[in-house]
Amino acid sequence: MTAGAGPLVIFTPSGRRGRFEDGTTVLDAARRLGVDLDSVCGGRGLCGRCQVRPGEGEFPKHGITSTGGHLSPRGADEAEYDRLRGLATDRRLGCRAAIHGDILVDVPPESQVHRQVVRKGVPVRDFVIDPVVRLYEVEVERPTLETPGGDLARLRASLQREWSLDADALEFDLDVVRALQPALEAGAYRVTVAVHDGQAVIAIWPGLHDRALGVAIDVGSTTIAGHLADLADGAVLASDGVMNPQIRFGEDLMSRVSYAMLHDGGAVELTRAVRDALASLVTGLAERVGVDRDDILEITLVGNPIMHHLVLGIDPIPLGSAPFALATDGPVRTTARELELPLRPGARAYFLPCIAGHVGADAAGAILSQTPYLRDEITLLVDVGTNAEIVLGSRARLLAASSPTGPAFEGAQISCGQRAAPGAIERVRIDHVTLEPRFRVIGSSRWSDEVGFAESTRRTGVTGVCGSGIVEVIAELFLAGVITADGTIDGSMAARSPRVVPDGRTYSYVLYEATTGADATDTADAMPARPRMAITQNDVRAIQLAKAALYAGARLLMDHLGVDSVDRVELAGAFGSQIDPLHALVLGLVPDAPVDRVGPAGNAAGTGALIALLSGEARREIEGVVRTVEKIETAIEPRFQEHFVDAMAFPHKTASMPHLAAAVELPPRLAVGGEAVPRAGRSGPPNRRRHAVAASTVVASSEGEP
Amino acid sequence: MTAGAGPLVIFTPSGRRGRFEDGTTVLDAARRLGVDLDSVCGGRGLCGRCQVRPGEGEFPKHGITSTGGHLSPRGADEAEYDRLRGLATDRRLGCRAAIHGDILVDVPPESQVHRQVVRKGVPVRDFVIDPVVRLYEVEVERPTLETPGGDLARLRASLQREWSLDADALEFDLDVVRALQPALEAGAYRVTVAVHDGQAVIAIWPGLHDRALGVAIDVGSTTIAGHLADLADGAVLASDGVMNPQIRFGEDLMSRVSYAMLHDGGAVELTRAVRDALASLVTGLAERVGVDRDDILEITLVGNPIMHHLVLGIDPIPLGSAPFALATDGPVRTTARELELPLRPGARAYFLPCIAGHVGADAAGAILSQTPYLRDEITLLVDVGTNAEIVLGSRARLLAASSPTGPAFEGAQISCGQRAAPGAIERVRIDHVTLEPRFRVIGSSRWSDEVGFAESTRRTGVTGVCGSGIVEVIAELFLAGVITADGTIDGSMAARSPRVVPDGRTYSYVLYEATTGADATDTADAMPARPRMAITQNDVRAIQLAKAALYAGARLLMDHLGVDSVDRVELAGAFGSQIDPLHALVLGLVPDAPVDRVGPAGNAAGTGALIALLSGEARREIEGVVRTVEKIETAIEPRFQEHFVDAMAFPHKTASMPHLAAAVELPPRLAVGGEAVPRAGRSGPPNRRRHAVAASTVVASSEGEP
Repeated sequence: MTAGAGPLVIFTPSGRRGRFEDGTTVLDAARRLGVDLDSVCGGRGLCGRCQVRPGEGEFPKHGITSTGGHLSPRGADEAEYDRLRGLATDRRLGCRAAIHGDILVDVPPESQVHRQVVRKGVPVRDFVIDPVVRLYEVEVERPTLETPGGDLARLRASLQREWSLDADALEFDLDVVRALQPALEAGAYRVTVAVHDGQAVIAIWPGLHDRALGVAIDVGSTTIAGHLADLADGAVLASDGVMNPQIRFGEDLMSRVSYAMLHDGGAVELTRAVRDALASLVTGLAERVGVDRDDILEITLVGNPIMHHLVLGIDPIPLGSAPFALATDGPVRTTARELELPLRPGARAYFLPCIAGHVGADAAGAILSQTPYLRDEITLLVDVGTNAEIVLGSRARLLAASSPTGPAFEGAQISCGQRAAPGAIERVRIDHVTLEPRFRVIGSSRWSDEVGFAESTRRTGVTGVCGSGIVEVIAELFLAGVITADGTIDGSMAARSPRVVPDGRTYSYVLYEATTGADATDTADAMPARPRMAITQNDVRAIQLAKAALYAGARLLMDHLGVDSVDRVELAGAFGSQIDPLHALVLGLVPDAPVDRVGPAGNAAGTGALIALLSGEARREIEGVVRTVEKIETAIEPRFQEHFVDAMAFPHKTASMPHLAAAVELPPRLAVGGEAVPRAGRSGPPNRRRHAVAASTVVASSEGEP
Repeated sequence: MTAGAGPLVIFTPSGRRGRFEDGTTVLDAARRLGVDLDSVCGGRGLCGRCQVRPGEGEFPKHGITSTGGHLSPRGADEAEYDRLRGLATDRRLGCRAAIHGDILVDVPPESQVHRQVVRKGVPVRDFVIDPVVRLYEVEVERPTLETPGGDLARLRASLQREWSLDADALEFDLDVVRALQPALEAGAYRVTVAVHDGQAVIAIWPGLHDRALGVAIDVGSTTIAGHLADLADGAVLASDGVMNPQIRFGEDLMSRVSYAMLHDGGAVELTRAVRDALASLVTGLAERVGVDRDDILEITLVGNPIMHHLVLGIDPIPLGSAPFALATDGPVRTTARELELPLRPGARAYFLPCIAGHVGADAAGAILSQTPYLRDEITLLVDVGTNAEIVLGSRARLLAASSPTGPAFEGAQISCGQRAAPGAIERVRIDHVTLEPRFRVIGSSRWSDEVGFAESTRRTGVTGVCGSGIVEVIAELFLAGVITADGTIDGSMAARSPRVVPDGRTYSYVLYEATTGADATDTADAMPARPRMAITQNDVRAIQLAKAALYAGARLLMDHLGVDSVDRVELAGAFGSQIDPLHALVLGLVPDAPVDRVGPAGNAAGTGALIALLSGEARREIEGVVRTVEKIETAIEPRFQEHFVDAMAFPHKTASMPHLAAAVELPPRLAVGGEAVPRAGRSGPPNRRRHAVAASTVVASSEGEP
């Protein structure tokens, strides 16, 4: 800036302004004013990151008359850039446009380093990108006999000179030192380096390199999902999911921990399996969009505590029994190499912090995505898995707990249950008069009573009922009066419908019976089609146990927070995204809330991983929030037992449900409050460690009920 | 400290003093006063590091009457420590001795963290240990259901509480996180951690662990030598050397670089070879003293630039041609794992900084060992290898250069030359009257004219002449008048001795002729015994080239420093340690200096690595010194050529040599100054890159001389 009478330059939207010597480039002026204008090539007209839009006309607010004519005309570099990559007529390259008169310069969002991410594709909240990895192209002095020092020292000097980096503080990976001289040679002493977190130089390329990619991964116990994103502009280039191959060691988490306990080297096998899947996920993502895997410089990960430990190669056995102590709950910064990912050696990995022994980095990711800590209203955020992770609170306070729901919501322990996969029934409606069902299966867009349903399910068959289907069918049976408030399948309904049938000393509801031959599957790897699926009394009991545990956990947090209602319920994860909010309320999975404010949050954990991938600021934010979250251990809270018992009924008796009552016609008995508590409830919630066994024992003992 | 009237405690040698509440332990008092008193076990009477000696009697200087009776009596812990490990009667464990009256407490050197190293075994200058790795034992809170955070967070809290470490700033290796819970379990929630450089936790053990070891390694092109040391007290537990297996790719450095240039993957092969040797060196050192390899936590390395690059896996080819640019000249901090050393994953490695393309980390190590930068007098420090690394200066200024001496000093390019190994002639004396030689060979303590010589060399044979032997025989021949000042073997001497014989158009001197059968070796792996060894005219020429290059380099630095003489000459490295200082002066390898101030510096580079191993302060010191060293490139200095040509004569004509003249009777011709310069000299010093070829060409062309 000159104090004198040079042209006045005003940048929008920042409003920063200053007078500069005639001939100063727009990029230089921006840098000197601290305006956020991107550049990788260091002002050589190559990268196109510094595009700006000169203002045309009078700008009374800014007291300036501006015209593109006050900049030097487009030169050869801009023409070449336009030819190669396109440059809109109202745009200039900031590094090539010299200022010769007063001018207003607009920096469009895509030219800012810290740009706003606009929702599209992946449903991500608005946030500002704060790149953890930045690229810098520099020219390095050639060595001579007179200057016999190291090339690395000369590279440091260039980074200091051209980019004002604190070069002495930069640490260089040994791999970068190894690649330095070949890169200088190939790039005629121009190279691009990737700087991680302002501290470590993790990659180097000859000449200009302007692509830095990252992958955000949600390591679920069933599915591992990843987003491949451009670290500079936040664009999600591809999303994909792979099965977690650990499933072969056990469907649910606790059975995998048991595997580790019972087999020498079992934990190592589990680690190898999940890392293999991570490797094929990132490889597949890169191949899908045809990018070089070597351009992936950063990985972020979320997952429940057991996945967290297994991915990092930490023995998960201590997580399998009280007091469920994590090896570490802080964020873990490591390298892709440490996780055996097939990326360049310098690629870094960041695992979000865990919250407690059963509330993992996935919950931290969901919190980062849904930001209950930024709202005044009380949000209940629930992610249902073998354990439900429950977060409750607002800007003022945030609490977290996990509830041992068991795997019933994932389709396990249900006679016709299966996990959410093509062929599974996921939606059910039951006619309140005829008691006839209609349903939809994953992989088909048609309801079972629509024309073409059989044809549309020919490849998958109808193979079972997944978690959301089970919740819906039981909620519908309750609304139709087939299931009573205490969870009994009402045998008297057998008179009204042939679908209600005796089943030992209890009754079942036949949801589905195959018409001969219609469901034969023609793919070898599909689940076998079932000829007949019924909802049994035991199935209802399993769902009662699971939903009571989930509700009791939420209710316990409400007690701690001192509230009797919540303003908003967000259901995260695969199950949470599938179930109908109304059915969730009808069954009493979650406390009563305005029906239009109960909804799916999508894969909030994965979205949180994506946000953390694109923003160092977001990492600091979630690390700070996690430290303040109050952890409630359900296992040692007597009130949890009470809430659990009280929550067994449909809907439960612990709270009036004005919002639900306003939204749906509940069976008449409910209006006066069902007092019956099924006997199974007296067993209390299943012990966490022995969950699988305990829950099935409880269910078995309830078989004798009338 | 209490301001009040508690007992007065005075620590020696620090002189720190304060009043403390009655019953305060000596260790606590020391900590509160900032007295350097060691402890690993955190004051539980286990490690014995905090031993102190209570003063007995009046101490007028300190104004105190002190007696051990002012401390609590020895208790059970000290009795047990005495039983297990011994506790002198005048010693107390500072953590167990409570203060009950005025007392003077002496902290013996071995109880200080920053203790002085006393020369013994390895000839190391005095320096203060500043441990880079420190051990801390702590008790970690057990997790409960009420405190469900991570064990790592609890460990951090203990380190902060018990040791006042800035726990939030500590970084934990992922391997330590993995090992944390098993260690807590095995150690009943007491663990010891190793903290590297105050920043990184690199190892963990159950319970008390008080052994931290390190290895300092000098990676020579011929020999790789290592010292295994205790990082706490600096004791050198073992020293060993292994051959550098890269020798199979070429005897001298440039031939190895050629190998890398001419073979795909050649550099990788060279790296693998040297790393294999490093691995077997550290393994062997640990086995030799029966310590656990897992206790080795730190490695320091020195080596010439090409070894530096190869050990680190950096392609050395750019070092083979002008401008000889290093990939990096700064210190390299990395891990033992990165260097594929078979140590615990957390072990760290530190390669000392290089100075210039041909002045490596070995020179930095030699500077750290010999500390010319601390003296007022001018020191010339020379390390002779294929390139001689030359350092000149004092406290005021330090200059460094390398000279292309070629491998003649290592026995290559000499008709009967070999490297220094058992069987090689290393010492020679020639009777000035009879011209008869006597000599000693490596592996025998007898001179060749002593009784029992034949018997003592039966296993090795007499296999060749190593560098120091060649220097001595040529110097002796010059002093005896057999070789003239211009380097010609005087044919007229054939009349005086049958050992001077015609050899084509020149003459040779027969140093050795086997008596039949006497030298048969009886080991299969020994060098083949030579029946006859003669010093040829070509041999003299090769040594003339080498010594002229060495002298010219030193002289060039003297020009730059503006001095005509040096106060002290230190000859480092294997060759430097072997040659007789007088012979070095007679041949004119180094500038004239008082003979008693010309001497071997031993393996100064390796000693520097050892000092850097034991002191973080020393690392910062040498890094700072290296940055200030002025690098002189001999290849572009015209004066180097002039000095080189002038230095070909014996002794050379560039300087008067009063010190040498006072010490030895020089041949009469020298007194008037020999003017003859051999024709070979006009070729100039060999080009660095093509040295091997160029030098032999020059020598061959000199064959025709009369």
